[in-house]
Amino acid sequence: MRKKHAMLAAGVVIALWAGQASGAPRQEPIQPIEAAVIKDPAKVELGKKLFFDPRLSRSGAISCNSCHNLGMGGSDNLKASIGHKWQQGSINSPTVLNSSLNIAQFWDGRAKDLREQAGGPIANPMEMASTHELAVQVLNSIPGYRAEFKQVFGKDDITIDEVTGALAAFEETLVTPNSRFDQWLKGDDKALTVKELAGYTLFKNSGCVACHNGVAVGGNSFQKMGLVAPYQTDNKAEGRAAVTGKDADRFNFKVPTLRNVALTYPYFHDGEAATLTQAVDVMGRLQLGRTFTPDENAQIVAFLKTLTGDQPAIQYPLLPPSADDTPRPAPFVK
Amino acid sequence: MRKKHAMLAAGVVIALWAGQASGAPRQEPIQPIEAAVIKDPAKVELGKKLFFDPRLSRSGAISCNSCHNLGMGGSDNLKASIGHKWQQGSINSPTVLNSSLNIAQFWDGRAKDLREQAGGPIANPMEMASTHELAVQVLNSIPGYRAEFKQVFGKDDITIDEVTGALAAFEETLVTPNSRFDQWLKGDDKALTVKELAGYTLFKNSGCVACHNGVAVGGNSFQKMGLVAPYQTDNKAEGRAAVTGKDADRFNFKVPTLRNVALTYPYFHDGEAATLTQAVDVMGRLQLGRTFTPDENAQIVAFLKTLTGDQPAIQYPLLPPSADDTPRPAPFVK
Repeated sequence: MRKKHAMLAAGVVIALWAGQASGAPRQEPIQPIEAAVIKDPAKVELGKKLFFDPRLSRSGAISCNSCHNLGMGGSDNLKASIGHKWQQGSINSPTVLNSSLNIAQFWDGRAKDLREQAGGPIANPMEMASTHELAVQVLNSIPGYRAEFKQVFGKDDITIDEVTGALAAFEETLVTPNSRFDQWLKGDDKALTVKELAGYTLFKNSGCVACHNGVAVGGNSFQKMGLVAPYQTDNKAEGRAAVTGKDADRFNFKVPTLRNVALTYPYFHDGEAATLTQAVDVMGRLQLGRTFTPDENAQIVAFLKTLTGDQPAIQYPLLPPSADDTPRPAPFVK
Repeated sequence: MRKKHAMLAAGVVIALWAGQASGAPRQEPIQPIEAAVIKDPAKVELGKKLFFDPRLSRSGAISCNSCHNLGMGGSDNLKASIGHKWQQGSINSPTVLNSSLNIAQFWDGRAKDLREQAGGPIANPMEMASTHELAVQVLNSIPGYRAEFKQVFGKDDITIDEVTGALAAFEETLVTPNSRFDQWLKGDDKALTVKELAGYTLFKNSGCVACHNGVAVGGNSFQKMGLVAPYQTDNKAEGRAAVTGKDADRFNFKVPTLRNVALTYPYFHDGEAATLTQAVDVMGRLQLGRTFTPDENAQIVAFLKTLTGDQPAIQYPLLPPSADDTPRPAPFVK
């Protein structure tokens, strides 16, 4: 009897220690996000500066953070992003949060990892409209960057590989653990309301979880947009077919993560769903052949809102100033 | 003898305590910046969110920080800023750092204080291109903002007055104390090199200090650009005359602060001086009728670089998400 009491007390202590968890971790098709382990803080700090530095763009005004705003769920909350000279982006900016968990990068998966991705927008004439040569020339001309790259990479000259390497190292830290749903997954029965839990059950039972699963609740497969009924859009993107050249891959897009989805509106590759309610409705009809009732829809939306995790705490970086011979931005050059 | 030793020891302790100062504070035409005293932290925090929130613009992409980047000396380091739909700004963006010390706001002083200034760009069709009505409607629709404004201002409805009040409260904290020059002003003989000190002496003796004086090393008067010889520029701005209507005020501009001037390139109201070397040369010839030798110019530039103070430490704000009924940004609407 004495022993049983002692064990009970130890159990209570463990439960309290594990963030109010009142049960054992759950076996579910979605797994909790763990906090980032930072191996090289200097590299991460350098990557953060580059992420916020608009001098990687031709105009001197567009940074990675312009379209992947870390104060706005790692997205820009626009249907289509604004590129160099106000060009309209061809596809909705996916969130940078938890992007290290993706099977590949971009909606069509054309970049195999974050390093490969990071080089894309810098040199895309529709986006930052610089070139790797110019971006590297700019960075090499800035004494503060030269010293920092030297410290991190042990080389005198900066190349695009170090630039994308540092950016990727920073982006790998942008994970969002400790959502209420993750607390529930870890055993805390009280982390979700009855409605939210009903929403999760419906999310599983109606088939959403077939694509939106794993740690990122998506991001780990390509699927056809418009599986049961065709998706109507003016957007020109054809998805995975642009990478594989296969007709069968037309309108196959990477399944987006649903982590922090309450922050990453608007939705879909064309940004045409303004609200979660709309997105859940369209997904139900086009991907599952099911029209959710308003109550069902509201339950799923309530569940989705529990996927907002701790956002990365960012000390806004002070960027090293340009030198007299740094190539100047050219926002208005014809 | 004993007493004298004790007093000496106390003197050493005080000197160490005052940041290595080895002498008494100096009486100079420039005075040190003191750290900001934050009276209402919740108001400042709210103002910081607004400062970084692009939803104050019609496009949803331009925030105060876009042109007054706190990682880049409170400026955008462009000749002319990029406004709504990539419109070219009519004048160089002045730094927001230490702007509370200015006699008035904008190059022509048309706003009497930071509150009056803050409302300008939001509604300027060349800049953020929103209206006060729309900006307030957006904020009122966002539950997170409603709660925060209520907490700070004790009112249920947000009006433009609370918006500009919170922005100004944040901007008042953006001071940059503890520059090496300020350390020298406070008595630390070792804070400046011989060259920097020679630069300051020349800055005083040649007359720069006649306009660039006080705590902000400028910002406290209007002066004619092109006093001794006319300033040649394609820029259309006529300065103070646009406010007073007086012909005598043509090309009278607010003297810019030289605090953090090493970070706030390019220089002048038209941004035509790319480097400090160029700016010092033009100022010498046009305002003082004096051509500085390369050595003299380099000395003054060395002094100017000692005016970079501690930059504000900014925890990047997490912006409260829009609600389903929040008016959506319209970057590409004709």
